[in-house]
Amino acid sequence: MAFAEYRPLDEKSLVEYIKTVPSLSSKLGDNIDGLTIKEVGDGNLNFVYIVIGSSGSFVIKQALPYIRCIGESWPMTKERAYFEAVALKEHGRWCPDNVPEVYHFDRTMSLIGMRYLEPPHIILRKGLIAGVEYPLLAEHISEYMAKTLFHTSLLYRSTTEHKSAVAEFCGNVELCRLTEQVVFSDPYKVSQYNRWTSPHLDHDADAVRNDNALKAEIAELKSKFIERTQALIHGDLHTGSVMVTLESTQVIDPEFAFYGPMGFDVGAFLGNLILAYFSQDGHADGKNDRKKYKEWILRTIEDTWNLFHKKFIALWDKHKDGSGEAYLPAIYNNPELQHLVQKKYFEDLFHDTLGFGAAKMIRRIVGVAHVEDFESITDDTKRASCERRALELAKLLLKQRRKFHDIGEIVAAIRQIQ
Amino acid sequence: MAFAEYRPLDEKSLVEYIKTVPSLSSKLGDNIDGLTIKEVGDGNLNFVYIVIGSSGSFVIKQALPYIRCIGESWPMTKERAYFEAVALKEHGRWCPDNVPEVYHFDRTMSLIGMRYLEPPHIILRKGLIAGVEYPLLAEHISEYMAKTLFHTSLLYRSTTEHKSAVAEFCGNVELCRLTEQVVFSDPYKVSQYNRWTSPHLDHDADAVRNDNALKAEIAELKSKFIERTQALIHGDLHTGSVMVTLESTQVIDPEFAFYGPMGFDVGAFLGNLILAYFSQDGHADGKNDRKKYKEWILRTIEDTWNLFHKKFIALWDKHKDGSGEAYLPAIYNNPELQHLVQKKYFEDLFHDTLGFGAAKMIRRIVGVAHVEDFESITDDTKRASCERRALELAKLLLKQRRKFHDIGEIVAAIRQIQ
Repeated sequence: MAFAEYRPLDEKSLVEYIKTVPSLSSKLGDNIDGLTIKEVGDGNLNFVYIVIGSSGSFVIKQALPYIRCIGESWPMTKERAYFEAVALKEHGRWCPDNVPEVYHFDRTMSLIGMRYLEPPHIILRKGLIAGVEYPLLAEHISEYMAKTLFHTSLLYRSTTEHKSAVAEFCGNVELCRLTEQVVFSDPYKVSQYNRWTSPHLDHDADAVRNDNALKAEIAELKSKFIERTQALIHGDLHTGSVMVTLESTQVIDPEFAFYGPMGFDVGAFLGNLILAYFSQDGHADGKNDRKKYKEWILRTIEDTWNLFHKKFIALWDKHKDGSGEAYLPAIYNNPELQHLVQKKYFEDLFHDTLGFGAAKMIRRIVGVAHVEDFESITDDTKRASCERRALELAKLLLKQRRKFHDIGEIVAAIRQIQ
Repeated sequence: MAFAEYRPLDEKSLVEYIKTVPSLSSKLGDNIDGLTIKEVGDGNLNFVYIVIGSSGSFVIKQALPYIRCIGESWPMTKERAYFEAVALKEHGRWCPDNVPEVYHFDRTMSLIGMRYLEPPHIILRKGLIAGVEYPLLAEHISEYMAKTLFHTSLLYRSTTEHKSAVAEFCGNVELCRLTEQVVFSDPYKVSQYNRWTSPHLDHDADAVRNDNALKAEIAELKSKFIERTQALIHGDLHTGSVMVTLESTQVIDPEFAFYGPMGFDVGAFLGNLILAYFSQDGHADGKNDRKKYKEWILRTIEDTWNLFHKKFIALWDKHKDGSGEAYLPAIYNNPELQHLVQKKYFEDLFHDTLGFGAAKMIRRIVGVAHVEDFESITDDTKRASCERRALELAKLLLKQRRKFHDIGEIVAAIRQIQ
């Protein structure tokens, strides 16, 4: 039996806790002596402990009842750990190669025990800043997105399963509201939380707040984010939620998971790759002009979308006679029609992806939470220049997204921004 | 205390039941002797009793655990009575003039006690078949739709309230699935339940099943029906769910209620008015060619949409600084932008309305449940001719809906079908 009521663990009480939980202590070969415990939570919301024993290891993630980086002034339900655990298990079920295994979940303690992603795993964002090429990244992340999104949608599921899962994840409303605020609202109004490279981008931030066409588009996306229960999405799939080595890609931290639009996940990932691209000029130096690396990022953007498309359609074709209730086999029973509906589906998903991706870019430049890709550029002028180009592209994508029809056109648009 | 477990009531046990329920017996002045009880359920799903005493009256509606018109072979959860009661109360809260008051709800018995809509109230559909003009119909039904849909949407509500209500109504999944089947699936495939005026419409029914463009569009609408939690919709707002006199309009039977797309309600009502229009030639005779009445229906279609639009926008303007979370006042704070987002919102809602309205028309001609407007035309050839024209219009609307921009264009399209 674990602890009877919630309390935040420290390194000492963590050991006591592990002793009471067989699924954890057994991972250490029941040898609790001489554990190495390291707190590594560099995120904003949780404690994260790496626990290494002589014959095994795991990670303990415990949610705090507030947003850690801001402090107790911004409370945030620790029930999010429950939704994170459910999402890890559900996504892990469909894509075990790219989601860490959950060993233990304790709802009272808001605590997850899961696989330790051993070195050389690092956060993808840090790899992108360092200029490391990951040859399997597009392959892996497209696999993750295709499998998790397809299998939790009505293309695979019955309405009965779907509505029951939707109802459960409605409970993760506080995390949804946080996204609504920081992605879809704050950047478009005066907010105490917003910040940007000032004074360089003062005019740009002001322009975002006064762009009627942009604000009309973001409203549509906000409603879609709240109202469209398309699939169990990760909800925060930026490059800081992915850990990588040259051979491995692992998606972590789905505490924002809920039934929402697929494009929010795909867009988050691609949008953050685009931010990485625009930050490269700020990391160029005499030794490395980053030109080759920028090409690799563009290729990865293109490959990620194209592979995602290909894998998703392959799953659809494979399961077209299955129990998914959106397209019944007795109706969509000819190849021409199957092709037509898939084309329609992906056109819609592509435009959602561009819109949500752009929204995620904008909020990282003029909203509360920025990205290390830009933050680590110490020269303000240089950083502002990178950020401004990313912002210009994002505004273009958000407002004109329906005019684009394939990822090649997006890469071309990225190249055109100078 | 009422009955301890579910049992279908007959006229005798109903009296026993009423005696145990103070909120019902008090409506009769606690005088249970000499009650007049009449079973009038002409619907497909329930028992409906009118109970009239010397000093009061009410209606008792009890759900049966199957679809009554088909029999016990098509089971259907009686829990739908719960969702009907919740929807009646919620819609009644926002539009008490057009929703019958609920006096009593018994979840165990799946039983609702509510206001008796006394004569000369009749089902609107019957009035339309008889050729009766209802001068206040457009005014009233637009009021009902604007108030119920606006106040249960994110234009009025917080995300927290919204997600909690969405989660609850996910429980009404069986009724949603029935709609999915009979509206969005069966008409587009071979199904034992489908029927049509045969052999006259054999080719037309076949054409529906083999129209790829139509089937691609219906798939999009089906997904939207399941996935888009825009507002608490009635879910079955045809002209058989409305009772009228010349002065009164009352919306009944929201057992299909759930959080879905607003256009499904608006489209259901307008689509059924269009069916009524096309049926009129079948009811014309030497005494009445119905030409004038057809014009009244067209005016009512136009007025209903335009008044709905006007009233909905007026509510939006009134509450634009309120707690609705879709369009925060700090962002959408200028008249030009407010106008722009309302225009976008209504363009989308108009296209949804046309699509869902068309889907509801098609299913009434080649699906399981037909409408009395056509069924009461005894001459097969005449009926088939009316139905074929309605079907042609519906196919046009479903496939081309994005090309229409105001209701006047729809009326013009209706006139063009001969």
